[in-house]
Amino acid sequence: MELDYSQAGFTEKQIFNTAVKLLPTINEMNSIVKTRNWASDYASLLLPSEKTFLHQSHRVLKQVKADNFIVVGIGGSNLGTLALQEPLGKKIFYADTTDPDHLKSIIKQCKGKTLVNIVSKSGSTTETIANACTLLKELKNYEVIVTTDSGSKLDKEAEQNGWLVLEVPSRVGGRYSVFSNVGLLPLAWSGLNTTKLLDGAELMIESCMSNDVEENPAAILASLIYLNYQKNRVVFDQFLFSNDLEALGKWYRQLLGESIGKHGIALTPTVSIGSTDLHSMGQSYLGGADNKFYRIVNSKFKNSAIVPKNNLAPNLNGKSFNKIMNSISTGFQTALANRKKPFVSFNIDKTEEELGGLMQLEMVEVMLLAKLLKVNAFDQPQVEEYKKHTRKLLK
Amino acid sequence: MELDYSQAGFTEKQIFNTAVKLLPTINEMNSIVKTRNWASDYASLLLPSEKTFLHQSHRVLKQVKADNFIVVGIGGSNLGTLALQEPLGKKIFYADTTDPDHLKSIIKQCKGKTLVNIVSKSGSTTETIANACTLLKELKNYEVIVTTDSGSKLDKEAEQNGWLVLEVPSRVGGRYSVFSNVGLLPLAWSGLNTTKLLDGAELMIESCMSNDVEENPAAILASLIYLNYQKNRVVFDQFLFSNDLEALGKWYRQLLGESIGKHGIALTPTVSIGSTDLHSMGQSYLGGADNKFYRIVNSKFKNSAIVPKNNLAPNLNGKSFNKIMNSISTGFQTALANRKKPFVSFNIDKTEEELGGLMQLEMVEVMLLAKLLKVNAFDQPQVEEYKKHTRKLLK
Repeated sequence: MELDYSQAGFTEKQIFNTAVKLLPTINEMNSIVKTRNWASDYASLLLPSEKTFLHQSHRVLKQVKADNFIVVGIGGSNLGTLALQEPLGKKIFYADTTDPDHLKSIIKQCKGKTLVNIVSKSGSTTETIANACTLLKELKNYEVIVTTDSGSKLDKEAEQNGWLVLEVPSRVGGRYSVFSNVGLLPLAWSGLNTTKLLDGAELMIESCMSNDVEENPAAILASLIYLNYQKNRVVFDQFLFSNDLEALGKWYRQLLGESIGKHGIALTPTVSIGSTDLHSMGQSYLGGADNKFYRIVNSKFKNSAIVPKNNLAPNLNGKSFNKIMNSISTGFQTALANRKKPFVSFNIDKTEEELGGLMQLEMVEVMLLAKLLKVNAFDQPQVEEYKKHTRKLLK
Repeated sequence: MELDYSQAGFTEKQIFNTAVKLLPTINEMNSIVKTRNWASDYASLLLPSEKTFLHQSHRVLKQVKADNFIVVGIGGSNLGTLALQEPLGKKIFYADTTDPDHLKSIIKQCKGKTLVNIVSKSGSTTETIANACTLLKELKNYEVIVTTDSGSKLDKEAEQNGWLVLEVPSRVGGRYSVFSNVGLLPLAWSGLNTTKLLDGAELMIESCMSNDVEENPAAILASLIYLNYQKNRVVFDQFLFSNDLEALGKWYRQLLGESIGKHGIALTPTVSIGSTDLHSMGQSYLGGADNKFYRIVNSKFKNSAIVPKNNLAPNLNGKSFNKIMNSISTGFQTALANRKKPFVSFNIDKTEEELGGLMQLEMVEVMLLAKLLKVNAFDQPQVEEYKKHTRKLLK
């Protein structure tokens, strides 16, 4: 993974002056990792070095063989899994929102035995319950595994039905839970090497716990998002130059949005996919206001086709698709730089290690950013505001 | 289609005071429609009442029978088609960005005869040429139809190869071209009733040409987006409560972004999908800054499943998925209203008439909004800034 922040709008001195303010938090995180303190808000930092869940997921999948896998869960319960499965694994079905057409199409495609993995921390998410009940009524040949908090309503229902239950450590919130069994079980079924995934994340934890902020990528990135936000750059766009990384962008959108979108903070995460969205948003990103900060993520296709000889665009003859995509991304970065619109860029390989590392980096980055913004990275107090009205309507 | 703007943050008096400023533009549009002036920037307004292209697309599809249809095009060349095909038609393949894995998967799925529709106004879009050349080399049984400007390089290449060419009226830009053969041909193949689609759009043109601004939905909506932007609501979010309307949101994102994202304008379009994105962005939308204006689009599922009897959420027993989705959307709207965060809401039926009407409404709305913002709705001058660097790199 390569990170370039030379065009991010601030000097190293400015960045490090902000980053040093994070040292007390980094020290606190360090001590939580060292003492393996699962009672802390930072408990998710223990997941990469915790092999219990990894072994549990492998054991379960040795017992339960299935032809299909459905994750029934929404938001923090499925976005991390989707983010990694899309670039790296075989197809999993997702039942997230209550969409009867989508459910029907899943049921139709499930031939043979299906593993239905109901994922809900609280065990009472409306969409998840509605989807799970419908699936269990319609599917003929299935086994259920529940991933939930110990003691939830879903946990009790599982006991009555004899369903297998995998627990999520109670202090690990949905948006930080991808390296628990929320992600590990479906991803292992999907064929990912989840050992390498955790290895990549664990290595990144080490970098992000560094007291030398000049070498700490999470501290540097959190500082940059913060400094750009102070300059009224209220949109933080994840611009991913690969179709199969769109879900990674959407996972991060929740991570950032839910962690810092409180107390009237204006910072808003968005997702763009290259090169497609240059043909829709490129004009606005270049010609519109300087109110955005970009994280550009470049990655290579494994299978890089070559453009055949043709008369329409002779300059493309023999060029690889990787070369074309890279030239489009570089062209956009040059245009941004010429307009002094700030961005950081990543080059990553689509492997378990690198994507595991990137997601871990982004989780620590968001925790640190929340500190700079003086908000709690782990709660979501306003979500209840719409849920209570919905409950009234569904009484 | 029902439009409710009672929670949009402004009184009717304020809205109409802004809307009347649009009367000269509405009059100009009216005269262009009446004189059928294809040389005007507003030429796209003539498309719904222009039956030539409709008949042309029907004639072509009678001659060319195909088992598969690939739209090779990006941005304005495919987003409108996708927006309508997803909720209403059978599967079309799209080759937009240069993604070799995606191309490979399309080729694998194309059994029988394939219609390759190369869509590019300029005829020189890098991604489109690279994808088209690769597809034509790999596919065994295909026919090509080109949709382009008269005289483009692609037009000439088509002549040499004996490919059928459908012209796009030269003053109709990509993002306003869905009711030309850019959209009509693939959508007719996909099974949509494109006659009804144009009927819905034509009816909407009538409403949007009304001199009585209190009855003109495009003038009202343009005024509301403008007034909210003046209050520093820099994000305009399309919140669509239906998975299959995501592409409609992305089509609008280009329409708005490319039409007004210039001269440093800060207004940024975003897309959210309900209920999924309430589980990622709901916290931020309610607890974050009051810097957004929302258009909430509700629609019913045709196939509304019923939640079976269950112990987990007895309150959901026997409730329809439509009822659940509607309650979630209403709950969110109530929560927004309680926080005085402004929104308009639409209830639409997913039919050709209503979606055709909605898209036409949104196109006129954006043209009028550009007038209020004093920008040209029809150019995209900054796009060239990245393309020139890309071209250098691909020499």
